[in-house]
Amino acid sequence: MYVTRRSHFSAAHRLYNPQLSEKENLEIYDKCSNPNGHGHNYYLEVTVAGDPDPRTGYVIDLKKLKQVIEENFISKVDHKHLNLDVDFLKDVVPTAENIAIACWNQLAPKIKEGRLHSIRLQESHNNSVEYKGQE
Amino acid sequence: MYVTRRSHFSAAHRLYNPQLSEKENLEIYDKCSNPNGHGHNYYLEVTVAGDPDPRTGYVIDLKKLKQVIEENFISKVDHKHLNLDVDFLKDVVPTAENIAIACWNQLAPKIKEGRLHSIRLQESHNNSVEYKGQE
Amino acid sequence: MYVTRRSHFSAAHRLYNPQLSEKENLEIYDKCSNPNGHGHNYYLEVTVAGDPDPRTGYVIDLKKLKQVIEENFISKVDHKHLNLDVDFLKDVVPTAENIAIACWNQLAPKIKEGRLHSIRLQESHNNSVEYKGQE
Amino acid sequence: MYVTRRSHFSAAHRLYNPQLSEKENLEIYDKCSNPNGHGHNYYLEVTVAGDPDPRTGYVIDLKKLKQVIEENFISKVDHKHLNLDVDFLKDVVPTAENIAIACWNQLAPKIKEGRLHSIRLQESHNNSVEYKGQE
Amino acid sequence: MYVTRRSHFSAAHRLYNPQLSEKENLEIYDKCSNPNGHGHNYYLEVTVAGDPDPRTGYVIDLKKLKQVIEENFISKVDHKHLNLDVDFLKDVVPTAENIAIACWNQLAPKIKEGRLHSIRLQESHNNSVEYKGQE
Amino acid sequence: MYVTRRSHFSAAHRLYNPQLSEKENLEIYDKCSNPNGHGHNYYLEVTVAGDPDPRTGYVIDLKKLKQVIEENFISKVDHKHLNLDVDFLKDVVPTAENIAIACWNQLAPKIKEGRLHSIRLQESHNNSVEYKGQE
Repeated sequence: MYVTRRSHFSAAHRLYNPQLSEKENLEIYDKCSNPNGHGHNYYLEVTVAGDPDPRTGYVIDLKKLKQVIEENFISKVDHKHLNLDVDFLKDVVPTAENIAIACWNQLAPKIKEGRLHSIRLQESHNNSVEYKGQE
Repeated sequence: MYVTRRSHFSAAHRLYNPQLSEKENLEIYDKCSNPNGHGHNYYLEVTVAGDPDPRTGYVIDLKKLKQVIEENFISKVDHKHLNLDVDFLKDVVPTAENIAIACWNQLAPKIKEGRLHSIRLQESHNNSVEYKGQE
Repeated sequence: MYVTRRSHFSAAHRLYNPQLSEKENLEIYDKCSNPNGHGHNYYLEVTVAGDPDPRTGYVIDLKKLKQVIEENFISKVDHKHLNLDVDFLKDVVPTAENIAIACWNQLAPKIKEGRLHSIRLQESHNNSVEYKGQE
Repeated sequence: MYVTRRSHFSAAHRLYNPQLSEKENLEIYDKCSNPNGHGHNYYLEVTVAGDPDPRTGYVIDLKKLKQVIEENFISKVDHKHLNLDVDFLKDVVPTAENIAIACWNQLAPKIKEGRLHSIRLQESHNNSVEYKGQE
Repeated sequence: MYVTRRSHFSAAHRLYNPQLSEKENLEIYDKCSNPNGHGHNYYLEVTVAGDPDPRTGYVIDLKKLKQVIEENFISKVDHKHLNLDVDFLKDVVPTAENIAIACWNQLAPKIKEGRLHSIRLQESHNNSVEYKGQE
Repeated sequence: MYVTRRSHFSAAHRLYNPQLSEKENLEIYDKCSNPNGHGHNYYLEVTVAGDPDPRTGYVIDLKKLKQVIEENFISKVDHKHLNLDVDFLKDVVPTAENIAIACWNQLAPKIKEGRLHSIRLQESHNNSVEYKGQE
């Protein structure tokens, strides 16, 4: 059984790898490397796998899961600049892939009922990524 | 190959386990245990796995799948109170998890082309569950 | 200029007019008059009309509008039974039309910046109503 | 007859009025005034009113309308920082209200078939504005 | 008070005016004039205006409105070729504008409670039209 | 890590197997076998699996994936009649299942970063299929 909680946050970012030249950054990231940044409404789906507790009928209380996601991830990225304001994204280019991995790393140790199964992050209407942890 | 049919129904329910005290119910279910109940528009996605029939190009005719879902599940829960009006939910707390398991049990024996693969139930804009049967 | 805030709530209700016979209720409301009730996820859009304040660029601060809607309407209907638990719906059949009118009456006196323009209430995927006040 | 074309763009912005103190900005805009900015996926709906041409059946060819919106607005705001990179937003706080007015001013003179009727801008899942011009 | 019922249908069409040359058709309609046609899932929103009946709380029973739309419009266009199979579209180019007008003409005389207020037709994710009748 | 790009196209088709009798076609495909065809807006989700490149943070650049999908699939089916205009669908009944398999076969050899993981095709609001290749 899989239970999923959907959240969202709004943030600015810039796709830019400081270890590459300006020319390489522009070739790879094109308009996404605009120096002043741009932004997105991100939709996040956190899925937890487990068996329902026979007493409560819940795999995990979604009110608690919401709180875990809020405290450990959303509150740290919402209305922020992902390259400048977020400790756990300091050393990576904030692509959707890297944000999803960072989200997994923030949440996995905090989920006590069931186990974290996947992080799905939708960056725009047509683009999304999903991460299921290291196998 | 997986084919998915989406349906919906509207129902009232109350999250309340009669084997627990009032205090425990309130701690676990909070406002979801309001004595007069509340309700949802539920979205249901039934997925069947199989190979397409080379003659028809169908894994299962979705018109037939729609009918199986309608007769064996939707007609029994739509515009009903899930705690009071539904035989196959009588002995469980009607959480999304338990409704999805009950839906699987209702539909699995009735699907003759392909095999039932998953039941996804969306209870509200942000909360959903998925059940893939006992493994 | 019109600004719109979207909210949602989940509630049970029953369409039943106690001044009519059982037979008339069944003829008019069909399965919506099921004695144990059913429920919906309601989506509410509150629109305020006005000119943007040249200092702030806001017609009304949507954080404040959200709070007005929450305090005066959502908190009173969310996870409730609309026929049994809500003072301001006591004397009407809780159709989408009557809920929208009641919402207008709750909110209109509380909106101090701009003026309430419309209440749009979506009861299910395909059914919605909009109310713009008495003209 | 009204025809509507939907577009979208992604941008960073910061709600901050340089003529106000830091304290006033924080009181008014709260986390939206974060110095490094944040961002959104904006959805834009441009509506043109007119009568269908009896020869073509079109009020305005939506391919042409798409091109007008792209050239005169989207290309100037997409993947940009609205406070820093956009000429026609230089002198206003980039609230949804002010972006919608600026969009109207950019597009109205360029629409030659029918007349611009409204600009609807959705900034986040729950917040949107609509502008119908000066009356 | 406005009540809206959403429906959908799937149809093929070709944008082609037989009174124009091939070259003119291609200039105006481009790939939409492909001789073998193409198709859409159309979403239709029919809005009826009126006052709620104090006895029922309904402007119009949406189950009845659904039936009127089904019998007089959807059943005649769903899974059809709009240029070839539909009597009331025989003499027009089936643009979204002309389909909306034809839908209005089909439905307006059949709506007995309240009055038809608008027909909104969404042809694709980004393109829609709305018709409010001759004024 | 899975990355998904969403696209869409509009096409006409007819469900009809020329090796079956008229009567059999009507029994199997019902109104979907209407001789003049009907049509859909199809939504396509192409998912690529792989590890993010440590230099770019991308599994695959979604701008490149978009181009691969556009050139090898969308441009060949958009605004076309799937039974008459598309080479790689000539020998199959264009059910959603068969279109998804054909899409997989078109795209799999062209994806050089990561590997094609799944093709999801939504034919209408309630019907979709997903194909993950031969196992």
